[in-house]
Amino acid sequence: MSFRAKIDHAAKEKFSNLILALDLPPSEPHQLLSRSINLLEEVHPYICAVKINRHLVLPLGLSTGIKRIVNLAHDLGLPTIMDCKINDIGNTNRVIAEFYYNVGFDSVIANPFVGWNEGLQPVFELAKRKRRGVILLVYMSHKGALEGYGQEIMNPKTGELTSQYLVFAEKALSWNADGAVVGATFPGKIEEVYAVLKEHVPIYSPGVGAQGGNIEAAIMAGTRYLIVGRAITLAEEPARTAKLLRDIIQRCADK
Amino acid sequence: MSFRAKIDHAAKEKFSNLILALDLPPSEPHQLLSRSINLLEEVHPYICAVKINRHLVLPLGLSTGIKRIVNLAHDLGLPTIMDCKINDIGNTNRVIAEFYYNVGFDSVIANPFVGWNEGLQPVFELAKRKRRGVILLVYMSHKGALEGYGQEIMNPKTGELTSQYLVFAEKALSWNADGAVVGATFPGKIEEVYAVLKEHVPIYSPGVGAQGGNIEAAIMAGTRYLIVGRAITLAEEPARTAKLLRDIIQRCADK
Repeated sequence: MSFRAKIDHAAKEKFSNLILALDLPPSEPHQLLSRSINLLEEVHPYICAVKINRHLVLPLGLSTGIKRIVNLAHDLGLPTIMDCKINDIGNTNRVIAEFYYNVGFDSVIANPFVGWNEGLQPVFELAKRKRRGVILLVYMSHKGALEGYGQEIMNPKTGELTSQYLVFAEKALSWNADGAVVGATFPGKIEEVYAVLKEHVPIYSPGVGAQGGNIEAAIMAGTRYLIVGRAITLAEEPARTAKLLRDIIQRCADK
Repeated sequence: MSFRAKIDHAAKEKFSNLILALDLPPSEPHQLLSRSINLLEEVHPYICAVKINRHLVLPLGLSTGIKRIVNLAHDLGLPTIMDCKINDIGNTNRVIAEFYYNVGFDSVIANPFVGWNEGLQPVFELAKRKRRGVILLVYMSHKGALEGYGQEIMNPKTGELTSQYLVFAEKALSWNADGAVVGATFPGKIEEVYAVLKEHVPIYSPGVGAQGGNIEAAIMAGTRYLIVGRAITLAEEPARTAKLLRDIIQRCADK
């Protein structure tokens, strides 16, 4: 099954379009690992996938801790996304993606800013061979995103000034990406990106909770999957919070 | 001593402006570690710093393998650069930089595309507190760099169309970065970036060897440090190759 089919399947099985970003504040590696495992076991009925970041990879290591979390997620019916924001030269990008896919990750996140030729092409080729996913950053959720993702650029195809994120959305479409990340903090931009992508490339939105994004506005604008980290991982009752968020998301999606 | 003082000192001590990119092709972790250590021990007299990438971090892990390499580099009088190309939201960027600095890295590489506010500001602040370095990507060495680093953007300060890499060079200057990466494959761009940075921010150039960059052209254009990976790591006689490259660099720099 491809990554897209897997996450679609999990979303239907769990009645959830909520992705858990397993971002835990730094602590001792064995504590981090056991907290990650506990969280996943508590929260799994309400989520459709798990996203892992360098918060866990750097202290836990790939072959030991991360592999256990990825395996557990799979046992719980959840595909896994590695948020490595790949943005290097092609040779390095391929090596990075290979390490993550080999540990079992179903998808990686990459930055289209590095381009295709000797950039992300080797990652897309590898993903295709291994039937894994590549999700592209289109607009991020922080304020400084305005400086890069929000800048006006000369669109080489039209010769006209265009927003950087719309050019990235076009790349997501033409490179046949498996997803496009647009921060939930910018519903207006989600709407514009959705107008480019329609149902061809699903939109993933982080930034709800700690960063202030609004679930309903994001979904109404075209987001398919909401990515939530600290609002769940730092909650007193993570499972209850995840269920609450899941219910809000599904209610908005049903509208 | 700050990172900039450290690498400057090492360059003078070793009569070398050559940085070894310790990029080894994937193999078993214990083989990778011993090859890295052997390479470093052979090559150290001819280099002024070591750059490490995810090629090593992902298989070796931070707290075990990478820490040993960083410690060895320090014992050999070499500062260390982590080529993590940081490009996430501020909270994650800070966590990533913290992990690398805590293992002992003297500097990290970051992508200015994510902006300052809730982007790289937390990394620069952390670096300042810890007296470590932040080197910014300005123009990369691969072909696809043209799509992002080479695009024309509306410069918000002047309202005029400007090359992306020149806007990044201005950020390197105003954010007081410790270095700016410009691919050796584009000496014309090195010259333009040098015109912005002058001696305030030293230029680091990868892309010599496997990627076809020319040492003399890069140095004449304004590069201070050459970063070389595969041309040394895959050479039959790495030390001899490193010495040869070092000698060419120093001869060009003396001109």
